[in-house]
Amino acid sequence: MKITFLGLGNMGIAMARNLLRAGHDGTVWNRTLSKAEELRADNATVSDSVANATRGAGFVITMMSDDQAVSSAVFDAGGVLETLAPGAVHISMSTISVALSKTLAAEHGKRGQHYVAAPVFGRPEAAAAAKLFIAAAGDAAVLERCQPIFDALGQRTFVIGPQPEMANVIKLSGNFLIFSVIEALGESVALIRKYGIDPHAYIDFLTSTLFSAPVYKTYGAIIADDRYQPAGFKMRLGLKDVRLVIGAAEAVDAPMPLASLVRDNMLTAIGRGMEDLDWSSVARLAAENAGLPAKK
Amino acid sequence: MKITFLGLGNMGIAMARNLLRAGHDGTVWNRTLSKAEELRADNATVSDSVANATRGAGFVITMMSDDQAVSSAVFDAGGVLETLAPGAVHISMSTISVALSKTLAAEHGKRGQHYVAAPVFGRPEAAAAAKLFIAAAGDAAVLERCQPIFDALGQRTFVIGPQPEMANVIKLSGNFLIFSVIEALGESVALIRKYGIDPHAYIDFLTSTLFSAPVYKTYGAIIADDRYQPAGFKMRLGLKDVRLVIGAAEAVDAPMPLASLVRDNMLTAIGRGMEDLDWSSVARLAAENAGLPAKK
Amino acid sequence: MKITFLGLGNMGIAMARNLLRAGHDGTVWNRTLSKAEELRADNATVSDSVANATRGAGFVITMMSDDQAVSSAVFDAGGVLETLAPGAVHISMSTISVALSKTLAAEHGKRGQHYVAAPVFGRPEAAAAAKLFIAAAGDAAVLERCQPIFDALGQRTFVIGPQPEMANVIKLSGNFLIFSVIEALGESVALIRKYGIDPHAYIDFLTSTLFSAPVYKTYGAIIADDRYQPAGFKMRLGLKDVRLVIGAAEAVDAPMPLASLVRDNMLTAIGRGMEDLDWSSVARLAAENAGLPAKK
Amino acid sequence: MKITFLGLGNMGIAMARNLLRAGHDGTVWNRTLSKAEELRADNATVSDSVANATRGAGFVITMMSDDQAVSSAVFDAGGVLETLAPGAVHISMSTISVALSKTLAAEHGKRGQHYVAAPVFGRPEAAAAAKLFIAAAGDAAVLERCQPIFDALGQRTFVIGPQPEMANVIKLSGNFLIFSVIEALGESVALIRKYGIDPHAYIDFLTSTLFSAPVYKTYGAIIADDRYQPAGFKMRLGLKDVRLVIGAAEAVDAPMPLASLVRDNMLTAIGRGMEDLDWSSVARLAAENAGLPAKK
Repeated sequence: MKITFLGLGNMGIAMARNLLRAGHDGTVWNRTLSKAEELRADNATVSDSVANATRGAGFVITMMSDDQAVSSAVFDAGGVLETLAPGAVHISMSTISVALSKTLAAEHGKRGQHYVAAPVFGRPEAAAAAKLFIAAAGDAAVLERCQPIFDALGQRTFVIGPQPEMANVIKLSGNFLIFSVIEALGESVALIRKYGIDPHAYIDFLTSTLFSAPVYKTYGAIIADDRYQPAGFKMRLGLKDVRLVIGAAEAVDAPMPLASLVRDNMLTAIGRGMEDLDWSSVARLAAENAGLPAKK
Repeated sequence: MKITFLGLGNMGIAMARNLLRAGHDGTVWNRTLSKAEELRADNATVSDSVANATRGAGFVITMMSDDQAVSSAVFDAGGVLETLAPGAVHISMSTISVALSKTLAAEHGKRGQHYVAAPVFGRPEAAAAAKLFIAAAGDAAVLERCQPIFDALGQRTFVIGPQPEMANVIKLSGNFLIFSVIEALGESVALIRKYGIDPHAYIDFLTSTLFSAPVYKTYGAIIADDRYQPAGFKMRLGLKDVRLVIGAAEAVDAPMPLASLVRDNMLTAIGRGMEDLDWSSVARLAAENAGLPAKK
Repeated sequence: MKITFLGLGNMGIAMARNLLRAGHDGTVWNRTLSKAEELRADNATVSDSVANATRGAGFVITMMSDDQAVSSAVFDAGGVLETLAPGAVHISMSTISVALSKTLAAEHGKRGQHYVAAPVFGRPEAAAAAKLFIAAAGDAAVLERCQPIFDALGQRTFVIGPQPEMANVIKLSGNFLIFSVIEALGESVALIRKYGIDPHAYIDFLTSTLFSAPVYKTYGAIIADDRYQPAGFKMRLGLKDVRLVIGAAEAVDAPMPLASLVRDNMLTAIGRGMEDLDWSSVARLAAENAGLPAKK
Repeated sequence: MKITFLGLGNMGIAMARNLLRAGHDGTVWNRTLSKAEELRADNATVSDSVANATRGAGFVITMMSDDQAVSSAVFDAGGVLETLAPGAVHISMSTISVALSKTLAAEHGKRGQHYVAAPVFGRPEAAAAAKLFIAAAGDAAVLERCQPIFDALGQRTFVIGPQPEMANVIKLSGNFLIFSVIEALGESVALIRKYGIDPHAYIDFLTSTLFSAPVYKTYGAIIADDRYQPAGFKMRLGLKDVRLVIGAAEAVDAPMPLASLVRDNMLTAIGRGMEDLDWSSVARLAAENAGLPAKK
């Protein structure tokens, strides 16, 4: 059965390649077509429009940068909504808003199409190694049909629940937890630096004891080095995600003051000239606010 | 050489026992003497006063609940300061303020006594198993003399630097990071519960992926259960510690807005009737603020 | 020249009546027509559709509850945009988002129609007494043509600048300042009540000295009384406005942490059961967070 | 009856002069004696020690910069506590902590001395013009005896209650409200500047409408001018006061998140190089955080 993959950024291209290499019949499309051409070597069918890519597909995966890109691919004339066959499945795997996910579920449902949300956790290297974690939500029978696809992309799939947007909430909450770790490390590293303690020794201590999780190692190293370029994810991407978290929380009347703090610090970081740095440079903001110079 | 142990709370009694069982010549003292009597079975010499306990000791360890208790044991008439022999070492192992640690260093120094700070990370079970992590700071040669003691108490010692208060800063910053995790989990669990997602599945997902550290497991389980009694540490103990963090930060002009947020939430939790619950019940506060009922 | 007034809520009906009594030729429309009928006594022409009301008008005033209502009246088929004559003026007087105001300016401009924003400050009693303050922005010549209208409605008009959305920013920032006063008073009244000080004496002291402004008197009295019903403005109206402030600030990368604090407190107030109380009941939240009982 | 005045800073010297000119028999003392000499022209008796100044006094007024100065004057050997006659009154008029005020009440009480707290509101010009506002608390009969003194210093006295520390709480809460106004204005001025609106026109609008209180005029002008030098009160004085507010609130378990926000912003302002500017330069911090340059 044909699997169509829309969106070939750093994450998407690695994921599409894994599907192709697992033997699936893959059709790919990307706004910038040259990216799609790279996948011909793995037997991809390259399509020049969303409509051509979607026609006849059993599964359409969207892996695009933001709500606007996904909305355009789905709702524009010739888009997924218009073209997808009844009974076929739209798997939304990128980070989108809860509101859009609910809209997608409703609109696909009206046309007898299936919709599941299955956002992923992991960086491009994890995507390339098929080591992503996948949080999937939607109709159980449909998810079961999708499982071979998930197996080709990730190391483990977590089924969250029957409402697709639940998976988007999980993804957003996970990013929130990452931002919280960065903010907390930023403040604590500023504190210990003011007392003359070496930040590398500090991070080594933390990650050897109570804070052994990957996220502390990854961001602890960046913050101890005070090295935010090249940016893995630029500040505005972080800001977009924390806004999605806050938006999801507002929709259910849940205050998240720590998310508000992170959001305001990201805006401040932009105002302070860190727009092109990695989003973890909110830790540099914490250092500067404590009167510490940037490290050379 | 005689090792004197002052303070036999949940942590202290386990630590003192490990020193005795490692073959050290131990003298113990506690405000409530009956606790000290328990250690006679391990060949402890039980002392009825700080002065008697300290006289002739090569090392005096303080493991007391707060600044006031340590100050009283050290500075009162007949206290450690008056009684400790020149060249002997005061090892301060409980969580005290940076300001007090600096004062202790100065006062011991004036009398030719040594002072090191070596606060520990771990709960009573870790103390019993001699699996504590120890953050030690002070004069390098003195720390080397203390190493056999640390070896009997913990699984690993991290030498932080030459100023004793550096170790206290490390300890306080570690507690701050724990509080940050609790606050972040509290907010995110409230969010996902509002979307009908099961909190146990959520915590399982987190701790199986990016957030595998012990602290997420320990507190994630408590928060998913919404079970804050019996309290491992009551709210006011948390409040005391976050105040010490803020005090240490203020002393070096470092703003820590996340610490302020946690502090205000702890005060609010007390105002909302959670004074006798575990400090992690700030997560229940987050749930209640989102309009969620306490779980049965 | 015909003046058309769309939106006859508590504020709008008083404003429309003042225009009619000042001798203007007024046509009125309201979603609930019965409200419009009340104005026949003042010689209003009552219209049964936006299109009929707008046709032939020199000025159309919108005074509606939110972005959605204004958008619908303007952009729907038969709406203001379609019906207003070139050269005529749309005066937007209610509290709307900066984003919508910019869109309105652009769309009217494309059709040779004029658009100015002129939001008002004041409660219904001030509207009835023609004592509103008006913050007006847009093309200077057009504002001059509108001045007789403003004179019939308010005690003073402030011309803010040439971009219509500037007036909306002013309005939103003013509401933000009001919310800030409420939050500050809420926290300080909780503090003094904990010390056994009478809140009425306290408010009297404040408003007799440095804090003599009307906003301190109005809200100080409500907070000292701890009386939030009947609600002048319900909590969700406040929440809507603080979101508009934050949205306007986000659009220009301006962090407003105090606005974030107020927003989170309003959400918390809703979670704590204050949805139907006046928005100033965030002050009750502050009291409850300090462990104070609601007053009888 | 002899009135002794301790502490002749900008405020104290003006106050002492008013007492002398009102015909009171005044003895003055100041750490830097030259300041005291200035008052000889007004018939002051100048004393070279606290003890000499206090001996035989019916009233001793303290008007000193902080807790430490007051504590030293009162509790040191030869201090007020040792020297003041039973039945005489210590009137504490400067901004001190609630904790110190309680201690003073207790210690004076043990010696049969009276103690009232009567902090003042107003700047040096108001002190010179005898236009201060006085918040007085303590035993009613004692306050009545003090009234002629208050009348010589201020335009109005507010009796707050029977516990002296109540007046200190009032003073601190008043400063908190001032800081809140500055923070709110700082954020809103940054917002409107981002939209190209003139800040002077904005402040004129605010203070002509809902925000007519002196505090908005005074600080609005400073913020619109972006002119924080010369500093009326330097940043660390503001920081000291907001800490006293937070300390008073902590003592009664009252969270004050807006006070925490102001505190952290003051610390950040210091870290950002604004230590020598007026405390209202937290508004410049808000502007810089929004990416606005300092005005020339």
